[in-house]
Amino acid sequence: MLRDIRNNYQKYKLEEKGLDNSPLSLFDEWLNQAISEKVVEPTVMVLSTVQQGFPDSRVVLLKELTAEGFVFFTNYRSKKGEQIQNNSNVSLNFFWAEMERQVRVKGIAEKIDSVQSEDYFKTRPRDSQMGACASNQSMEVDSREKLERQFEVCEKKFDGKTIPMPEHWGGYIVKPFEIEFWQGRSSRMHDRILFFQDEGKWRFKRLQP
Amino acid sequence: MLRDIRNNYQKYKLEEKGLDNSPLSLFDEWLNQAISEKVVEPTVMVLSTVQQGFPDSRVVLLKELTAEGFVFFTNYRSKKGEQIQNNSNVSLNFFWAEMERQVRVKGIAEKIDSVQSEDYFKTRPRDSQMGACASNQSMEVDSREKLERQFEVCEKKFDGKTIPMPEHWGGYIVKPFEIEFWQGRSSRMHDRILFFQDEGKWRFKRLQP
Repeated sequence: MLRDIRNNYQKYKLEEKGLDNSPLSLFDEWLNQAISEKVVEPTVMVLSTVQQGFPDSRVVLLKELTAEGFVFFTNYRSKKGEQIQNNSNVSLNFFWAEMERQVRVKGIAEKIDSVQSEDYFKTRPRDSQMGACASNQSMEVDSREKLERQFEVCEKKFDGKTIPMPEHWGGYIVKPFEIEFWQGRSSRMHDRILFFQDEGKWRFKRLQP
Repeated sequence: MLRDIRNNYQKYKLEEKGLDNSPLSLFDEWLNQAISEKVVEPTVMVLSTVQQGFPDSRVVLLKELTAEGFVFFTNYRSKKGEQIQNNSNVSLNFFWAEMERQVRVKGIAEKIDSVQSEDYFKTRPRDSQMGACASNQSMEVDSREKLERQFEVCEKKFDGKTIPMPEHWGGYIVKPFEIEFWQGRSSRMHDRILFFQDEGKWRFKRLQP
């Protein structure tokens, strides 16, 4: 039964000691630990947006962490692109099951400079570049076959050529105003430390689990 | 570099053939496959809610799947409880990295009957029951020590006794009106099948990746 699937979290703890009002450096530490401990898909984050009072959420990959925030790339004409254009308030959720850790981010999404997006686009494998060109993201399509024909059309079009970044493609940076770090503990007495902005500075407090 | 972390998904595909207008049975199939293939934390789902135009998201565990929807349990006085009381539109996101699969649910959350909640509460390990009693979920607390003292107070109070379910604790069922199944494919040409309600019946269509 589903209800019997449970873990008693006890790998780590999260203490106030040593925290320095810098949530992004703590995030960086946790992320790097997830990468070095071979968590499956460590850069996965669930991006949530709001559309007319309804939340919507999907997985995207974190592609860059800067002093300003969290960067991911997408088709600006996708559903999430439309939603962000109408309401740039978003949340991000990282869950590293193997580390018994979760990070919850609330922030504002902004398009990054197209030069930066191109810089990243060029590093993508050719087939991913092709895929970005071949798909009208989130639109209906009659069949898998039709999708594959679109891909083939792009393959012919760009045969032997560099694939240019589509105009409607690029990155967003999520600038956080709240970040919660959640460390699973036994008996569901988890550690939760919430960083929040207070007059332009980061502060933190502990929350009950 | 983060941007170099990428998978070329190629384990499975998702075809229209064999789909029978019943997204919950397809979900059940994927969930059971995730459990039998030993995905880490297969019942993890990211629940997103909306508070005054801002999305908020956190991990909860799926505890029951019924013909009506997805059941999880929580403290009704927690942030998510408050948010659902004000706006019952929610989304759920399941990501089974090892299966290269994602399920995106949009639905309405409703409290379940307290008798059903008690039924589940009784099956929880005693320490989890204690934890639910000892924590004012999402409220600030001065220190870990204070939290542990709250736990000890509950331990003394219920020493040798059955721990009753707190009045403010129980389940929600998320009744879906849209469910998307996402199967990672190579060259980012993923399979996406969206089930939606049409005059009280489920139908589906394929989306571009």
